[in-house]
Amino acid sequence: MKWSKMLIQTLRENPGDAEIDSHKLLVRAGLVKKVAGGLYAYLPLGMRALKKVQQIVREEMDSTGAQEIVMPILQPAELWKTSGRWDLMGPNMFRLKDRAEHEAALGPTAEEEVTDVVKSIVSSYRQLPVTVYQIQWKFRDETRPRFGLMRSKEFLMKDAYSFDTDADGADKSYWTMYHAYERIFARCGLKAVPVQADGGDMGDSLTHEFHVLADAGEDGIAWCEKCGYAANLETAVAHVECDAAGEVCHAEIENAPTPAKTIEEMVKFFGVPATKMVKTLVYVADGKPVMFCVRGDRELNEVKAKHLAGAKVFALADFATVREVTGAPIGYAGPVRPQADVPIYADIELKGATGMITGGNLAGEIDLKNVSFERDCKIAAYADISIVQDGDKCAKCGGTLAIKRGIEVGQVFKLGTKYSDAFKAVYKTADLGENTIVMGCYGVGVSRTVQAIIEQSHDKDGIIWPAAVAPFAVVVDLLDPADAAVAKVAEDIERALEDANIDVIVDDREERPGVKFKDADLIGFPVRIVVGAKGLANGGVEIKRRCDSKDKTQIVAPGEAVERVKNLLAG
Amino acid sequence: MKWSKMLIQTLRENPGDAEIDSHKLLVRAGLVKKVAGGLYAYLPLGMRALKKVQQIVREEMDSTGAQEIVMPILQPAELWKTSGRWDLMGPNMFRLKDRAEHEAALGPTAEEEVTDVVKSIVSSYRQLPVTVYQIQWKFRDETRPRFGLMRSKEFLMKDAYSFDTDADGADKSYWTMYHAYERIFARCGLKAVPVQADGGDMGDSLTHEFHVLADAGEDGIAWCEKCGYAANLETAVAHVECDAAGEVCHAEIENAPTPAKTIEEMVKFFGVPATKMVKTLVYVADGKPVMFCVRGDRELNEVKAKHLAGAKVFALADFATVREVTGAPIGYAGPVRPQADVPIYADIELKGATGMITGGNLAGEIDLKNVSFERDCKIAAYADISIVQDGDKCAKCGGTLAIKRGIEVGQVFKLGTKYSDAFKAVYKTADLGENTIVMGCYGVGVSRTVQAIIEQSHDKDGIIWPAAVAPFAVVVDLLDPADAAVAKVAEDIERALEDANIDVIVDDREERPGVKFKDADLIGFPVRIVVGAKGLANGGVEIKRRCDSKDKTQIVAPGEAVERVKNLLAG
Repeated sequence: MKWSKMLIQTLRENPGDAEIDSHKLLVRAGLVKKVAGGLYAYLPLGMRALKKVQQIVREEMDSTGAQEIVMPILQPAELWKTSGRWDLMGPNMFRLKDRAEHEAALGPTAEEEVTDVVKSIVSSYRQLPVTVYQIQWKFRDETRPRFGLMRSKEFLMKDAYSFDTDADGADKSYWTMYHAYERIFARCGLKAVPVQADGGDMGDSLTHEFHVLADAGEDGIAWCEKCGYAANLETAVAHVECDAAGEVCHAEIENAPTPAKTIEEMVKFFGVPATKMVKTLVYVADGKPVMFCVRGDRELNEVKAKHLAGAKVFALADFATVREVTGAPIGYAGPVRPQADVPIYADIELKGATGMITGGNLAGEIDLKNVSFERDCKIAAYADISIVQDGDKCAKCGGTLAIKRGIEVGQVFKLGTKYSDAFKAVYKTADLGENTIVMGCYGVGVSRTVQAIIEQSHDKDGIIWPAAVAPFAVVVDLLDPADAAVAKVAEDIERALEDANIDVIVDDREERPGVKFKDADLIGFPVRIVVGAKGLANGGVEIKRRCDSKDKTQIVAPGEAVERVKNLLAG
Repeated sequence: MKWSKMLIQTLRENPGDAEIDSHKLLVRAGLVKKVAGGLYAYLPLGMRALKKVQQIVREEMDSTGAQEIVMPILQPAELWKTSGRWDLMGPNMFRLKDRAEHEAALGPTAEEEVTDVVKSIVSSYRQLPVTVYQIQWKFRDETRPRFGLMRSKEFLMKDAYSFDTDADGADKSYWTMYHAYERIFARCGLKAVPVQADGGDMGDSLTHEFHVLADAGEDGIAWCEKCGYAANLETAVAHVECDAAGEVCHAEIENAPTPAKTIEEMVKFFGVPATKMVKTLVYVADGKPVMFCVRGDRELNEVKAKHLAGAKVFALADFATVREVTGAPIGYAGPVRPQADVPIYADIELKGATGMITGGNLAGEIDLKNVSFERDCKIAAYADISIVQDGDKCAKCGGTLAIKRGIEVGQVFKLGTKYSDAFKAVYKTADLGENTIVMGCYGVGVSRTVQAIIEQSHDKDGIIWPAAVAPFAVVVDLLDPADAAVAKVAEDIERALEDANIDVIVDDREERPGVKFKDADLIGFPVRIVVGAKGLANGGVEIKRRCDSKDKTQIVAPGEAVERVKNLLAG
């Protein structure tokens, strides 16, 4: 392929809306073009990378026996109403009406659709297990689309669904996918870590997310270097020592008028550490107010809190509700004698805590000192409801947890019978009974993976593509395109590489060498071959890997170029 | 691949909503599953065929140097407003709003989007010509979705767009695509005929549709066996002899009260042939009434009429307008002295016609006899505005035109500068001037092609797949799956075929031979190998092509099966 014939545009300037390196590089290297907020066209170079990732995903899915299908993007509202998610999905789901006023969604995922399709085909245990997958565009009406392909409104996703006769079978299907995902990301040149995660609205049981560790990641992950424990911060647990273990304070509660509202201000005002403060938050769980207390140096984990409250709809209470519940101004909520009789949950760390400073639940800017949880508060339950922090002890091995950032590129879920119950997806057993199908679902963000690769593999000059997913494995920088003899050498190398099934682009533009080198580094082809009159006069062409420094450049005879490239790509 | 592991469902009954064979067979063979009206999931077998057609399209596009991209399905309204098509597309285009109330369309096509993307990258003549293509899902809010994948709401389309410096270049790009399309359909095993067609809203210049001739086709095509002339009925022209050539009638106009309204009734009532009658129709062209006259045995060609009137918005007038224009009851419009002063266009065939019977434009059920067009009517223009009929003379060679039915599977268009003007897509010329890019667009209905193949190639028992696009090239009907020795033979043949890159499915189900044969014929795998204990005892396995009759069955030793299959697939 000749550069001059390709629709390529490299840019010197970073796009104004790009916050992270991979987004900047996607646009600057001419891989994608923004059509509107959260909507990107994949240009020829970006398309090549996207197709290579797709192909890896497809091959690994096929190797597990999963069968490729494709389902409509337009999904009738009835499907979503059957599962109860028509309302639950909220404004993140694009909705529209056809000319007959039938409501439909643009699929953000396809559990409902696939269950409806598969149940109409599967009737007997003989047809199980079966796993199907599709690589299809998905849609999400993001509040604030950003980070390029990471939070876009339209994205390419591989979604697979397994159907088994029982939980054991579903377990097997789950781990088959789990291992396929390990292979997929490895083949994409990605270090992706499987981490335990929360099932959320999708199901309640076992689930792992695959994260690419990167500072630009949106998700926090608790990570134990010692034992390998890795969990999404939403579910991560640490080894917690209750405050009861510390010094006990027997003093009586004391009102402490204070203008300090935040923990930071209170630390200054009272001159005691945040570990002796209590944060109290009011939430509304399925319409009813609930209070949660964590230690002043901690943050409430909303996912854990929601599970503890057993709530489906869960959100911070508005100011009016807070005032009503506490009887106090905003910032002075506490666990002692709230105005309203609401359940109060406290973090396990607070069990037995004494001598704490809390909000007063009083009609004024008043805190309380010397609060003893067991003595002074009516706690519904003590439980782990705080977010794990850097330096916490690993609950598994006692090692030290570190908090890393991750980009989620895949997830495997055990769905159980959530959807098969809703859709009455049953099968006839061998003894002619009837049983419910047990399901799992498994996603890979295909377009997101492309960007995660860039986020994990780049330097100040541009992208450093792993060979398996590079738009082209090799770039030939033809320095003197007007010199027929030199051009012939480039042509021969191009043909020889293509014959060896190595894809190559020849930069035949009439540009200065500096421009070509800069563009090659920016786009990040794994191997660069420089073909120029001067070099040829000195006996050869220059070959260098993108990831190597300049001084590793090798000079080889043109006829040896292909072998050398093979070695470099394999190395 | 083992049949028992695949999600396959064959049906004995035709689906209730299927009107044509290919739709029935798509569903009965388990290639697709209806999700809702006009929305289909592609099951594993259908997906395999769809992917094979996709791959053929991709290879032929790539061979022309066209570059694959992919653009968002969600297209901002601004793009469509820039071209003026936001309103023109009417209710066929799905529209929705995002959470920020921005309007968008689900792309039915992508001229606007691609022009906007390409113009932002191309700035110099050096970057031209360039052709890009995508294989992407398209959307159409059909009034009445039907015929399976033929008129569905969501369909897979390959759309390509060429960008050239001038009309000559655009012409070259056009014919490059034209010939690529010939290769695509030939490789799909389709007899597709390129026919001249009308540019419609998409542009005004040269365009060809590729039609698969089939009785179930929705489009009419005029076809000259002698010279090969082929045109969509919308644009087809015939050699017309004006009525002036016949006997001349000098009699004066005469009122003829008659209860007959239709041509058929008039022929009975007056006892003269339809060729002596005139059909007069009132249309509204861009808000103004216009009248059109064709001979009684002809139908008005709305496309030709619209072009003649130079109208953008064009539709039959409502009854009130007709009464106002003619001054007569419905059914009594004519070209003589209408009530309102509106332009009257007459078909070229009526030039010089005398002794005609027309509607009276009078306040009653009154026709006129002895109408001479030149003498009695104020005709704005005579032109070809009728639909070509079976038996008309070919305008090119004088041969006889036949009317065939066709399924449109592709179309090539010269767009000129329609979109580049609207989007100011310009380039710098070699002498630093500025010029407008000249475009073309080229579509292949990928999912529709799958169905057209079935419509063209099936019999009473099922589909007869061409090998290149069959879900599997070979089915091995394993008659005694429980017999280990027999199963081993099937296994060996399966592996040998796979090693030879021939895809094969082994029907290992515990079903009667009759069921297996019926299913194999219904799905229509090109070659069937029967492996059974009885056959093996008699020296071999049975091999037969789907398209051959039973008596062509060959018995070969298992070891020879692969070679025989290769010969049959090549034959």
